[in-house]
Amino acid sequence: MLQSQLFAKMRKEAPKDEESKNARLLIRAGFIEKLSAGVYSYLPLGWRVIGRITAIIREEMNAIGAEELMMPALVAREYWQKSGRWETDVMYKVGEEKNFGLGWTHEEVMTAIATRFISSYQDLPRAAYQIQTKFRNEPRARSGLLRGREFLMKDLYSFHADQEDLFGYYDRVIEAYWKIIRRMGLEKFTKLTEASGGEFTKEYTHEFQVFSEAGEDAVIHCGSCDFAQNKEIAAGLESKPCPKCGGKLEESSAIEVANVFKLGTRYSEPFGLSYATAQGAKKPVVMGSYGIGPSRLMGTLAEVMSDERGLVWPESVAPFRVHLLALGKASANGLYSDLTERGIEVLHDDRDISPGQKLVEADLLGIPYRAVVSEKTAGKVELKRRAAGEVELVASEALAKILQGSS
Amino acid sequence: MLQSQLFAKMRKEAPKDEESKNARLLIRAGFIEKLSAGVYSYLPLGWRVIGRITAIIREEMNAIGAEELMMPALVAREYWQKSGRWETDVMYKVGEEKNFGLGWTHEEVMTAIATRFISSYQDLPRAAYQIQTKFRNEPRARSGLLRGREFLMKDLYSFHADQEDLFGYYDRVIEAYWKIIRRMGLEKFTKLTEASGGEFTKEYTHEFQVFSEAGEDAVIHCGSCDFAQNKEIAAGLESKPCPKCGGKLEESSAIEVANVFKLGTRYSEPFGLSYATAQGAKKPVVMGSYGIGPSRLMGTLAEVMSDERGLVWPESVAPFRVHLLALGKASANGLYSDLTERGIEVLHDDRDISPGQKLVEADLLGIPYRAVVSEKTAGKVELKRRAAGEVELVASEALAKILQGSS
Repeated sequence: MLQSQLFAKMRKEAPKDEESKNARLLIRAGFIEKLSAGVYSYLPLGWRVIGRITAIIREEMNAIGAEELMMPALVAREYWQKSGRWETDVMYKVGEEKNFGLGWTHEEVMTAIATRFISSYQDLPRAAYQIQTKFRNEPRARSGLLRGREFLMKDLYSFHADQEDLFGYYDRVIEAYWKIIRRMGLEKFTKLTEASGGEFTKEYTHEFQVFSEAGEDAVIHCGSCDFAQNKEIAAGLESKPCPKCGGKLEESSAIEVANVFKLGTRYSEPFGLSYATAQGAKKPVVMGSYGIGPSRLMGTLAEVMSDERGLVWPESVAPFRVHLLALGKASANGLYSDLTERGIEVLHDDRDISPGQKLVEADLLGIPYRAVVSEKTAGKVELKRRAAGEVELVASEALAKILQGSS
Repeated sequence: MLQSQLFAKMRKEAPKDEESKNARLLIRAGFIEKLSAGVYSYLPLGWRVIGRITAIIREEMNAIGAEELMMPALVAREYWQKSGRWETDVMYKVGEEKNFGLGWTHEEVMTAIATRFISSYQDLPRAAYQIQTKFRNEPRARSGLLRGREFLMKDLYSFHADQEDLFGYYDRVIEAYWKIIRRMGLEKFTKLTEASGGEFTKEYTHEFQVFSEAGEDAVIHCGSCDFAQNKEIAAGLESKPCPKCGGKLEESSAIEVANVFKLGTRYSEPFGLSYATAQGAKKPVVMGSYGIGPSRLMGTLAEVMSDERGLVWPESVAPFRVHLLALGKASANGLYSDLTERGIEVLHDDRDISPGQKLVEADLLGIPYRAVVSEKTAGKVELKRRAAGEVELVASEALAKILQGSS
């Protein structure tokens, strides 16, 4: 894509009314735009990143046999009343007569749909997910994409004949979430953390917590093993040795990017979702629900994968693979056509601005590879990885191969 | 995909509270599910169709240089007030203090965003679109996917230095919309129709009207040429000869699946969206907006491409290419693996139900090709096109080639 044609431009300064690092960086670099507190538009660059993140999530959900569907945002009052969740501050209510609550989660709708299609043990297990816009009436919305009033969520729901089957699937979802987190390069920052059941269950639930100063959660975790608990349930543990290995515990701020819940029969019972066993007995369906937030993941990447010069996208979700810069009087038009024809996604900075500005903006944008053509490079290309920083002078003909070979 | 694993099942009867043909068919066949009046979930089969429709739309939008982005549904009151559209019955208002209107169209947000990035003639023209869930407070919502309270919309906005440039792009969008309609097989049912400007403009706007008894619009059109006007502006014309060719005019019901508006400076003026000309003069940006509805298109296909036995999907948007039926004791497992490995999308009815039920449900589902394996086909495959109805006995080895070759 030609940068001169890009709908959004980079800005010299971050907006004054934005406190969070992720929103400041993403707005300056032209990935998102603030509409009001906690409400953002995704500009073309940002929407490309979201598209990459959701593609990874889809692949891993499909790989564990989940089917994609789409539920509405307008959820009629009767559904919330059935589960006892109509009166909650986090839900926006809609319409003159407040007939609807805007979906902030979809257990009720999913369970109601399942009653249409699940009636026998032969219909189990099942799993279905959606990637959807959710709404939450957040009193404070100052964390950019980390806590929005409107945000994207992948929510998965599973249906089982018994607890044992649920527990097996729960572990498979945890493994799928690890794969998603690994593919986005976040593994080294992330701990699978035990947390309270909240309103859903009395057992521990699990959260994927990404360590970051921007995080609103506090996690007590062990330096020697994988033990980690949300501070909510780990009160008093800080001063003690790790209950798992005896190692030293520490406390860190973290961003909750995903969570998994064993719902049990919390929703199947009020909605009458039951099945007939092989012996003809009637039993309630056992459910799980699992969330991971694509927009929060994008904000998290901006928090933990950035430096003083700007964003540093992992290759798996970057909006383009290579940022091609023609400095001064040099032309990169031929190289642009050649790379594009080979299926490499190139952002070509063809604008008539100073070399200095192009280089500064390239760092801010954070595309994994920067390829510079100038009078200095004398027919060759100066290739630099945004993350590593090492510079290499390569022949133009070799560039495509390097970009295709690396991953 | 194995039909035994499909989340949604077909139903013997349409729901009693659903009047519209499209919703009755789509619910019976397991493509959608009703949550409340005008509010539907898309089940996995239906979501696949939506995915195909939006992929076609994306391709044609990208081909005319439009960039995809995503705007929020929660649009703060101040944006609507700026354009004078806060007080409208169609908009759902949200929150205790009604700070937000749920987006039913996005001229305000798009114009506000554009003020950040368009300031010079060099920034023009630009075009950006989104494929997004929209909300409308419809007093009556009885037409299934044709008029929902929550629906999918692709809305495109264009920005120009002058009217002439807008007019040129307007014609390009009309051509792109014809391509979309053609690719979905709807061309022979569709007329480009002149309509009133509504609140946007005093010039005629244009609508793509698909003739159907289910349509809520009335179109006066010529049997001999392409003249067509929405009855709203054609009052009294019915009894006269065609003003374009003198031919005979008739009136038909039709579904408006798309529309195009020349907005002019209706939004750029209140939002202060202006640009500096090459000579340094300040001028308001001239805008256009263009909508096409993926969910309404899906409902329209169900209305006009169906018969007494069920749905008849065009190949371009069908959820699968071929429906593989193993009847009685015959097995199609090998054929299923073979076709799937070749990248052909197969729905394999592996359920242990009667041949009669499988055949009836295949017709209801409306996948373009039905491939039957039974004791009667003696090692061969009985191939039938859902639309044409002719039956052909082909060798198993030839099946993949026939399915890949046809289009």
